[in-house]
Amino acid sequence: ERQAAQDRRPPRRNLSAKLWSHPGRLTILYFFALIALATVLLELPISAHNRMVTDPVVAFFTAVSAASTCGIQVVNTTTHWSLFGQAVILLAVQFGGLGVMTFASLIALAVNKHIKASQRMLTARELGATKLSETKGVLNAVLVTTLLIEVITFLALFPGLLHVNHGNVRHALWEALFFAVISYNNAGFTPDGAGLHVNSWGVGLPVLLSAFCGTLGFPVLLNLMRAARKHTPPKRWTLHTKITLIGTFCMVAVSLLWFRCVEWNNHILFSHADLQTRLRYALTAAVMPRTSGFDPSWVPDVSDPTKVFMSAFMFIGGGSTSTAGGIRVTTFTVVLLVCRAAFRGKRDVTVFHKRINERTTMTAVSIMTTCLILVFSVSLALMAVSGCSLSNALFDTCSAFGLGGYTVGVADQSDPAALLLLAMTMIIGRIGPMTIAYAINRPSEAQAVRFPEEPIIVG
Amino acid sequence: ERQAAQDRRPPRRNLSAKLWSHPGRLTILYFFALIALATVLLELPISAHNRMVTDPVVAFFTAVSAASTCGIQVVNTTTHWSLFGQAVILLAVQFGGLGVMTFASLIALAVNKHIKASQRMLTARELGATKLSETKGVLNAVLVTTLLIEVITFLALFPGLLHVNHGNVRHALWEALFFAVISYNNAGFTPDGAGLHVNSWGVGLPVLLSAFCGTLGFPVLLNLMRAARKHTPPKRWTLHTKITLIGTFCMVAVSLLWFRCVEWNNHILFSHADLQTRLRYALTAAVMPRTSGFDPSWVPDVSDPTKVFMSAFMFIGGGSTSTAGGIRVTTFTVVLLVCRAAFRGKRDVTVFHKRINERTTMTAVSIMTTCLILVFSVSLALMAVSGCSLSNALFDTCSAFGLGGYTVGVADQSDPAALLLLAMTMIIGRIGPMTIAYAINRPSEAQAVRFPEEPIIVG
Ligand SMILES: [K+]
Ligand SMILES: [K+]
Repeated sequence: ERQAAQDRRPPRRNLSAKLWSHPGRLTILYFFALIALATVLLELPISAHNRMVTDPVVAFFTAVSAASTCGIQVVNTTTHWSLFGQAVILLAVQFGGLGVMTFASLIALAVNKHIKASQRMLTARELGATKLSETKGVLNAVLVTTLLIEVITFLALFPGLLHVNHGNVRHALWEALFFAVISYNNAGFTPDGAGLHVNSWGVGLPVLLSAFCGTLGFPVLLNLMRAARKHTPPKRWTLHTKITLIGTFCMVAVSLLWFRCVEWNNHILFSHADLQTRLRYALTAAVMPRTSGFDPSWVPDVSDPTKVFMSAFMFIGGGSTSTAGGIRVTTFTVVLLVCRAAFRGKRDVTVFHKRINERTTMTAVSIMTTCLILVFSVSLALMAVSGCSLSNALFDTCSAFGLGGYTVGVADQSDPAALLLLAMTMIIGRIGPMTIAYAINRPSEAQAVRFPEEPIIVG
Repeated sequence: ERQAAQDRRPPRRNLSAKLWSHPGRLTILYFFALIALATVLLELPISAHNRMVTDPVVAFFTAVSAASTCGIQVVNTTTHWSLFGQAVILLAVQFGGLGVMTFASLIALAVNKHIKASQRMLTARELGATKLSETKGVLNAVLVTTLLIEVITFLALFPGLLHVNHGNVRHALWEALFFAVISYNNAGFTPDGAGLHVNSWGVGLPVLLSAFCGTLGFPVLLNLMRAARKHTPPKRWTLHTKITLIGTFCMVAVSLLWFRCVEWNNHILFSHADLQTRLRYALTAAVMPRTSGFDPSWVPDVSDPTKVFMSAFMFIGGGSTSTAGGIRVTTFTVVLLVCRAAFRGKRDVTVFHKRINERTTMTAVSIMTTCLILVFSVSLALMAVSGCSLSNALFDTCSAFGLGGYTVGVADQSDPAALLLLAMTMIIGRIGPMTIAYAINRPSEAQAVRFPEEPIIVG
């Protein structure tokens, strides 16, 4: 019998090895399985508050929204879903977040498999992977980082939530757990109706900081933690960390400035608010759109230009290998660096005295172009399907693609076609850019012949 | 005295040589001078029908619209401008068109100055330049092609216009001249109020064909004429010709399909029209938006999705070194080819068994990214300034940038801020992409040190 078991073993290991060696396919498989499971569970009567079977499109949309850590809600999380349903959403978010961080990291490793050993080592170290077993190393790093930040957030949130819940320990515990998971994973589901608990610093600040950490991507977090431990000066941080941090801070600063200049005196939004509240709103608006959609009640009230502005920022999104979506801030920065190099008449794309690989620039350009065409097409389709304006269609498309979690009302229960379109966009937003990156950089045989060059006139 | 004249000569030739050796600067100088001159002339009371001084913003906007061959009109060309004013517009269009074709060609030559001699020869031959004196050769080729097509258009239009004008030869001659110049140069000014003359095949078809030739760019026309004379099979046409033709035909086909599917039953647009009229409308809509804006009366009546669709096509625009605007169809095709190469895991960007230079792909990517950011920012600014919807703002911005010549009403006499924004966009649309191309490919010293590579995670 033992002999038979040993005989069976090699093929099993081969299958697993095969899957892990194709992180692109594995990612797709993982997310489709997660979404299918969550949809089925949310369909069960036990998941709904009223113990009825939920509309399949709504269940599917919610499952996609949770597993992709997007957070767009078509039904109120508190009033529609039971505790069981909420737990399903929470687990879908947790496994969606862990999945994307793990797979994105494995893909980043695979992508760099074909470059020089020294650089590959750099990526692996950045991702917290030990040389012995990269997959295990990455999984460990992801799990430890995630749990650490979630526990800290939980502890930071508990006092505030206990106060808000008038000493109801059980409810405060559940809400702290919920918020801790949801915020680091950047999914904007809220366990209480209006999501207004976030509107006090005691709850809002830990959520904000945790969500911000979540958008950086954990290679950056690991790098920063290591740098803090070893007192490494910023100059010696990895290029990826530098670019992600600078890109993120620029986006937050520009967002803050925008809300200060354009929406500060919006009488619907800030009508009877003091400076503190305004600042909290503006800060939330600056950090959250690219990430999680807590307290989405104010979003439909912003002006049209702000909707367009937020759409662009959601499209750009958060850091690579993070739970945030979009084309990723590193992708956008690399494209800008390509332009800068071009305008300076340089062939090499350089930054901070380092050169960026040609493959990387090609990948960034391809991701941006493909995703632009996708977002444009989906917006057009949404306009045709639901008859909404371009700014609303663009906002909801970018929110779905960038996993922002806000909606201005295009995602509506009464419009299943729009819901399915947005669900598709969320799935693509979740696994699209990283699978594009993998597809582009997958192993391929060297080209035998190079075709002759012929000039072409552009511009 | 003669001696003194000879002494003065060399510095004068040096200045001219200096200017011609910087086609980027020369282009900017030429267009600013042309616009200034046209503005001053249009300001004169003699230019207006009512012999009054025109509002400076309107005169400036019209001058920019004419010199950039865009064609957006804020005042009715027939009722506001006198014959003198119309002649000024016509000359501004003619010199604007000649200017852009000449300078774009010179820039194309300059851009290829730094690549292999054999390839440079190819570009020069394509541009009709003789080796002896390239500038002269290019100017000759541009002039001959332009005059040839304009004369043909003039002759083709005359009978139809004579019929429309009930035998008034003088008026028919003036209109034929006007339409011949305007259509090849892709500026949509019309010498009669509603522009309805175009709505018969006898006038509409020559205008359509001439405008279509204008959008191809004259290297393509030269190449096709030479191919026709020498019976060269399509396989041996230049890469630039192939890409431009394929790109253009795809865009026209998709446009036709869009109007067939989305606007065919638009009751405002085609309410009591027979198949012929519908087809003419659809064909005009498919060819013109990227080019000239004849008969713009139907444009504000299209649905919102169509506005967005047309915006995208105007943004892409026509062929390089043509009178059409946009980022140019070759630029867009090159970016798509970069994506295709990336998805196939290839390093070389190839098409039709030819390799596209790395510099060219970098240029295309930079032009697209820069122009996207520009169009996005101008649309936002227009929304803020005039309070219009995103689809309208985007349409007029893309129309100005892509020199489409249509407007849905954002360009309004009563809104000088919007007019100035759009005028700026037209100027950038006219000289932006080609000066970007030049700036990127200008002579620069070789890089002495290459920085070390460091990986970065995108997507
Ligand atoms: K989110
Ligand atoms: K035009």
